[in-house]
Amino acid sequence: MLTSSDIAREAGVSQTTVSRVLNDDPRVTKETRQRVIDVIDRHGYTPNAIARGLVTSRTSLVGVLISDIMNPFYPELLEAIGSQLAAYGLRMLVADTASQPEEVHARLLVEHRVDGIVFTSALLDSQTVASLAARRFPIVLANRYVDGVECDTVTTDNGGGAKAVAEHLLELGHERIAVVTGNEKSSTSRDRYAGFVAVLEEAGVGLDPTLVRTGDYDYERAHATTVELLELTPPPTAIFCLNDVMAFATLNACRRLRVGVPEEVSVVGFDDIRASSYEAYELTTVRQPLGELARTAVDLLAERVAAPDVPPRSLVFPSRLIRRKTTAPPRRAIRRRTVAQADGRRANG
Amino acid sequence: MLTSSDIAREAGVSQTTVSRVLNDDPRVTKETRQRVIDVIDRHGYTPNAIARGLVTSRTSLVGVLISDIMNPFYPELLEAIGSQLAAYGLRMLVADTASQPEEVHARLLVEHRVDGIVFTSALLDSQTVASLAARRFPIVLANRYVDGVECDTVTTDNGGGAKAVAEHLLELGHERIAVVTGNEKSSTSRDRYAGFVAVLEEAGVGLDPTLVRTGDYDYERAHATTVELLELTPPPTAIFCLNDVMAFATLNACRRLRVGVPEEVSVVGFDDIRASSYEAYELTTVRQPLGELARTAVDLLAERVAAPDVPPRSLVFPSRLIRRKTTAPPRRAIRRRTVAQADGRRANG
Repeated sequence: MLTSSDIAREAGVSQTTVSRVLNDDPRVTKETRQRVIDVIDRHGYTPNAIARGLVTSRTSLVGVLISDIMNPFYPELLEAIGSQLAAYGLRMLVADTASQPEEVHARLLVEHRVDGIVFTSALLDSQTVASLAARRFPIVLANRYVDGVECDTVTTDNGGGAKAVAEHLLELGHERIAVVTGNEKSSTSRDRYAGFVAVLEEAGVGLDPTLVRTGDYDYERAHATTVELLELTPPPTAIFCLNDVMAFATLNACRRLRVGVPEEVSVVGFDDIRASSYEAYELTTVRQPLGELARTAVDLLAERVAAPDVPPRSLVFPSRLIRRKTTAPPRRAIRRRTVAQADGRRANG
Repeated sequence: MLTSSDIAREAGVSQTTVSRVLNDDPRVTKETRQRVIDVIDRHGYTPNAIARGLVTSRTSLVGVLISDIMNPFYPELLEAIGSQLAAYGLRMLVADTASQPEEVHARLLVEHRVDGIVFTSALLDSQTVASLAARRFPIVLANRYVDGVECDTVTTDNGGGAKAVAEHLLELGHERIAVVTGNEKSSTSRDRYAGFVAVLEEAGVGLDPTLVRTGDYDYERAHATTVELLELTPPPTAIFCLNDVMAFATLNACRRLRVGVPEEVSVVGFDDIRASSYEAYELTTVRQPLGELARTAVDLLAERVAAPDVPPRSLVFPSRLIRRKTTAPPRRAIRRRTVAQADGRRANG
């Protein structure tokens, strides 16, 4: 099976250029066009056959299922998905499961004869994904997987990212740590939580179960939860929110209660969406390569449409801790260190 | 011409229920269904004819053109547009002019045989809108209009909102006011600027031309512009940004330069998007009824598809100043008032 990226590599051009050649786009020079066609010829395809299978297929429409367009994570994904689809000459039908259930959206998208569907918000037990995968309808899961379903998936190393957060907080001296989880039926929340807990356990630091709260990846819910956490005696010295939107809510709840960040409580998010670096937040978080993840998901889907029989692929991108201004040693640890230093001085003196 | 809202009113049900009846949606009770059909019968239509003309038409796809999905204003619009379209059994093809020019998107949407197009970001001189309107292709402009083009439009009273901002700032005592404008080819930026200037002129307060800067409705650009404004001698005592996203940038630039808001500079936005009320911003701004505006735009489009010959309608929703924590009297005015009070006391004593 020859994919558009194979053609691009062999012809020494971008994938966009390959798509343009296949779509008879006038922006390609005659020379470049010939180079691409030569590659295709060498493999015994005609451009039209490739174009039919690889790019244009039936309607040139692709469904994209998201769960909440008001969560700025999704616009970032949609921006990258939409422009990569456009490079293939495909167009994006956006369906938000906030308005109708996933299965209704999926059924309607299939009725519209979309060439494929990108799932960005399917839950671990999604019957919709399971049944489309079983029927070999072209789908790709972006930023998640579904238990027991074999299909193309692109994710970030969520467990690894959360481990880096745990190591960072332990290194700073935190021991009383709260976790605000996401949707508990999502692979992202499960993997992030598992990675975080694994490191704490290894270090012999327990996670107080009363400090683990569900935030459902929702701003309002995380805001209310943070207020509850900060009213505990003693409050946690650090709060790990399993996405950035909830971390913004936590930072805003701290403002509401006049709790200093990071002096009184450290806050960490996950995703590194654009606003995380704004001066209003300057959030320590885990960066997902969202653009790359989205573009790769589209590439896999385009290839899947062309070659339904290729075995399912699972790609995992690395994640990376980004330290900004919302994490610092806990006050308690500062005191301890001071006492320890004093003791040390006495011992030395 | 019988519209879905006429049917709804006469049958005493919601428009969503009418759409459901026309779409054979099982969620409608037998009784309600009969009531709706009776109304339709009284007017001599058969449900199917209505459904064909009013709701389902050709593909049940509607194109929605936006200009930048990363601007959180658009996800708010899309959420409302998408769910109202879903109530009519229509689906949303989202096209972002950040990835391809408006005319390319529009051509492709028409090729996909969409039933109509919602324009949320067309500029005042849009040839695409002019030519579709001339061909009587069903379109609606949401949150804007295009000069010299007669078609359905739904806007907020942008001039009135900006006037309220000017009155508020004058009342607080501001005289050295900066304006960060939006896209200068958009009706929103033009009307907001004109409304603002009109009130200042009437009050005999001049607008220093060096304090009027274009921000192009863009976060990064507004951030850079604010830094320049704050470095002037003397700096402005108030900055009016023509949308909220730019006001967030201004607030963040103030944080960067450790300029106190509202003590040292007042900041006002426009739109009242969700994050404006977050503790990180608590922005004084002008509320647009975005949900209502979006839903009405979809209603007009659905009616337009059913009745291409109805004369174009222009609806304008009222706007409202929302006072939060980013505006206060300027330091200069505080001093003045203090002197005046002291003088008053002397005069009385």
